[in-house]
Amino acid sequence: MDFLSQVNNIKEQVSFSASFKKGNYRFVLVAGMGGSGVSGRIFSELCTKLHITVIDSYSLPEYVDESYFIICVSYSGNTEETISVANMAHNRGFKVHAITTGGKLKSIADEVIEIPGGLQPRQALGYLLMPMINTFMGISDSERKKITDSLEFVNIGEVKKLAEQIALSGKIPYVISWEPYASMSYRTKTQFNENSKLPAINHVLSEQNHNELVPLSVNEKMKNSFFYISIDGDHNSRNQRRMDIMEKKSGIRFHHIVPKGDSYLARYFYLIHFIDLLTYYTGIGLKFEPEDVGVLETLKKELAGII
Amino acid sequence: MDFLSQVNNIKEQVSFSASFKKGNYRFVLVAGMGGSGVSGRIFSELCTKLHITVIDSYSLPEYVDESYFIICVSYSGNTEETISVANMAHNRGFKVHAITTGGKLKSIADEVIEIPGGLQPRQALGYLLMPMINTFMGISDSERKKITDSLEFVNIGEVKKLAEQIALSGKIPYVISWEPYASMSYRTKTQFNENSKLPAINHVLSEQNHNELVPLSVNEKMKNSFFYISIDGDHNSRNQRRMDIMEKKSGIRFHHIVPKGDSYLARYFYLIHFIDLLTYYTGIGLKFEPEDVGVLETLKKELAGII
Repeated sequence: MDFLSQVNNIKEQVSFSASFKKGNYRFVLVAGMGGSGVSGRIFSELCTKLHITVIDSYSLPEYVDESYFIICVSYSGNTEETISVANMAHNRGFKVHAITTGGKLKSIADEVIEIPGGLQPRQALGYLLMPMINTFMGISDSERKKITDSLEFVNIGEVKKLAEQIALSGKIPYVISWEPYASMSYRTKTQFNENSKLPAINHVLSEQNHNELVPLSVNEKMKNSFFYISIDGDHNSRNQRRMDIMEKKSGIRFHHIVPKGDSYLARYFYLIHFIDLLTYYTGIGLKFEPEDVGVLETLKKELAGII
Repeated sequence: MDFLSQVNNIKEQVSFSASFKKGNYRFVLVAGMGGSGVSGRIFSELCTKLHITVIDSYSLPEYVDESYFIICVSYSGNTEETISVANMAHNRGFKVHAITTGGKLKSIADEVIEIPGGLQPRQALGYLLMPMINTFMGISDSERKKITDSLEFVNIGEVKKLAEQIALSGKIPYVISWEPYASMSYRTKTQFNENSKLPAINHVLSEQNHNELVPLSVNEKMKNSFFYISIDGDHNSRNQRRMDIMEKKSGIRFHHIVPKGDSYLARYFYLIHFIDLLTYYTGIGLKFEPEDVGVLETLKKELAGII
């Protein structure tokens, strides 16, 4: 809920810039899972000039060498996959840069950006994203102003109405997005998963037109299983045309979420905030507690052999 | 259906090896959509020593330079996204290597591996994959023998029985996989889409344990919407343990597809073949024509302004 304050709390000097400039780095590798790792997915789309690889597993890829700037993102600092990647990096002689609130990761990383605790990872996207934006893109005061403005464009009434429709539909969200907001469909899926306790399908255009368009066009029974949401990319694009044809031909009506804001970053942040609120209120509408992800905690304890 | 003959028809000399060795390449970029592009996704998992980037959009990323060996994969040779990437590559002075049956791509690429036509892209995975395997991994006669053997391990009776269960369930496939077969859940989703006319959720472990495990554990109504399939990774792994705990805690029973074969490649090919047949027979069971993806053809014509 306090996405804007997170963006503004992480000042421009909170970055890995000094280390990045000092080394002879050419690539960026972001390792992280779930609500932490999604910051890497979004950042890799935001920062088009750099080749950013996102790792959501236990392993540092074999091909990584000293030209990769390695960032391990774990809100808790105790995510076992991310710790595993950090250890593999050390074993192969590479430095580990961490964005975390603490935990094991804080103690083993070579350089740590410590962010405020007390949240769940998916609530901390501003804290997780901003150090990467500061390091590799920079952010001007006027850009911050545009972000502030764009978040105010989110219409709570519109969000609540849509959330109510989703909750009442009893259907599974089907979320599609396209560049330059392609990563948003995955973020939206995971926010429906955790905040609304709904499974969801996520896909991107134009890739979806090469496969999942088939059942949505010809399987009448299945077609009705979903609540269709489109996170619209820029207009006048080939993918916008694909969306128009798809709606016309399949008879499916997507609910369109249109990014608002005076810059690309501002529009991206608008979408993040809109989806956070949407999935929160959908959870409320379904009589679930949006904050409760106790089952994930239980799993972690079981994996650790604690219970 | 003739996956094995495709593997054997593409001899070891069918490769880009000479060009790859001649240039000063360090990375591989594979551009392709749908049934063509999935070859890049699978290859990027098979070939762990190289950093392989898969592009499923209209754009060649800004960061690409002359150290990237660019392969455009389009079975028809007329996929507009892939043609767009090829043109961008040329405009920036890079060579384009193509795997295709012909079309525009054949005429614009600098080097072409021409593969047999007359199939649909998703039926040609052997033809699409083998040139990349020959170029970057190589394949010995004994490896080919292991692949041949593994494909014979596929038990048609088992496949048909599972396909019948899926078709009769009336449910949406939920497919999960994990490394070293992580890309299989996406391939399986798309094969359900096209061959069986079923939408599907695909996810990978352990990432799924950080988000979609929540609804599958606590949303009783939604839990029953899916037919759960696990493409099992190697045993004794942390992800196997996660699967065990997930089944125990959530009460969900996955149908497990266990790879068989005497090498990693052989087991991967076993899974590809198993899933091809499974989704084919599921389509038959649902009274759909597995080969018919006319809606995709219509969309392409409409996009091209032909209809």
